[in-house]
Amino acid sequence: MLKNIRLTLEYDGTDFHGWQIQPKRRTVQGEIQERLEQLLGEEIKLIGAGRTDAGVHALRQVANFKTESKLKLENILRGLDSLLPSDIVVRNIKQVDQRFHARFTAKSKVYTYRIYSGKTVFLRDFTWELNYHLDLNRMRAAAERMLGEHDFSSFCVAKSCKQNNTCRILKANWRRLKDELVFEIEANRFLHSMVRALVGTMVDVGRGHFSVLDFERILSSRDRRKAGLTAPAKGLYLMKVKY
Amino acid sequence: MLKNIRLTLEYDGTDFHGWQIQPKRRTVQGEIQERLEQLLGEEIKLIGAGRTDAGVHALRQVANFKTESKLKLENILRGLDSLLPSDIVVRNIKQVDQRFHARFTAKSKVYTYRIYSGKTVFLRDFTWELNYHLDLNRMRAAAERMLGEHDFSSFCVAKSCKQNNTCRILKANWRRLKDELVFEIEANRFLHSMVRALVGTMVDVGRGHFSVLDFERILSSRDRRKAGLTAPAKGLYLMKVKY
Repeated sequence: MLKNIRLTLEYDGTDFHGWQIQPKRRTVQGEIQERLEQLLGEEIKLIGAGRTDAGVHALRQVANFKTESKLKLENILRGLDSLLPSDIVVRNIKQVDQRFHARFTAKSKVYTYRIYSGKTVFLRDFTWELNYHLDLNRMRAAAERMLGEHDFSSFCVAKSCKQNNTCRILKANWRRLKDELVFEIEANRFLHSMVRALVGTMVDVGRGHFSVLDFERILSSRDRRKAGLTAPAKGLYLMKVKY
Repeated sequence: MLKNIRLTLEYDGTDFHGWQIQPKRRTVQGEIQERLEQLLGEEIKLIGAGRTDAGVHALRQVANFKTESKLKLENILRGLDSLLPSDIVVRNIKQVDQRFHARFTAKSKVYTYRIYSGKTVFLRDFTWELNYHLDLNRMRAAAERMLGEHDFSSFCVAKSCKQNNTCRILKANWRRLKDELVFEIEANRFLHSMVRALVGTMVDVGRGHFSVLDFERILSSRDRRKAGLTAPAKGLYLMKVKY
């Protein structure tokens, strides 16, 4: 009997060329699929909820795969634990309904982005280090403007833009945490590099290069050339997938 | 006029073959000396307070060097900042008395060691990940036994043991911090790999392999073969040097 198995995954994106499998490159999907095939002795197709870019981290990525294997879940977990490299860990495993699809069943995803303004060597792969002043109130005002349903064409990397660039933003806020500014965003879907383009443009608002009104205009222009820089991947985390 | 300059340094030890300069290997001393020579146009001898091993980190290493350069301190700092790789940062620079010697003038040094018992990929280069139960009270009792002046031959890597292996331990305690057990030790001097051998042996006490009395006997035996395993370098941090 075919079983549908759901994995919750944490990974340090630093040394991966992103989630999606590519020939001759180290990817998260590739590493896990290969280990699953080794363990289960059959071809596996692993479906991830979010196709994180190179350098992007995940605290709770969700993925699923179907298998004929009779191995118990706890043995699959133990097997994966021993086979996976140290920058991926399986946080949870469970059997789910046949219809569960990590990507299409997802209702929303939550990402956070970390900007660090202190001086340390230990966060260099895990935050965007910025040492100029950022006005948090202006960045909060810009974040508020994106709530609800909008066409985010201005914040999508051109080559991968879709026909339909409408996303519904459920949450978008900045908070200060010691030496960090942390942006949290929840949406029903995300375009390619969208969070990084939004963060980069909000940073331009925070340092006074754009006004909050400029931000609104950029959003409504639906023109990627108008937006600010794209924030580096290393500050971005896929935090949660909601079903 | 020859100036004596003191640097306070932070580094991520992961990608270094330790502090001490070695031909054809990437070392902290080597990287900084090379950048200083480039910046100041003269030969520089950098003296570090503690010669940390490969993989050992530092939050506040102290070093000094002498120079004929007329460059202002702030310009040396700015120059170093722009030349140094991203895993070393200069936290402070100041001119000190000619007699100041980072190593010989030091009164004591403080190290911490981090043991992590949770499940995350993000601390794998920064803690020792142990997933078996450790009895903190037993480890605290063992730590207490090392306070004061003792011959630490049992906890010194044989090939580098000195004639005089006596150290005075000023502080030695364990504390629990979320999913971590953190050992802090302050001493007037440290033998090669001593903190890692002490931590490894205390872990053997914590998991019941040795008793606290065994620990005392190992210490007084002055015989390295009696001690437990050596904890991995990646959990060790040079925290502070006191003068």
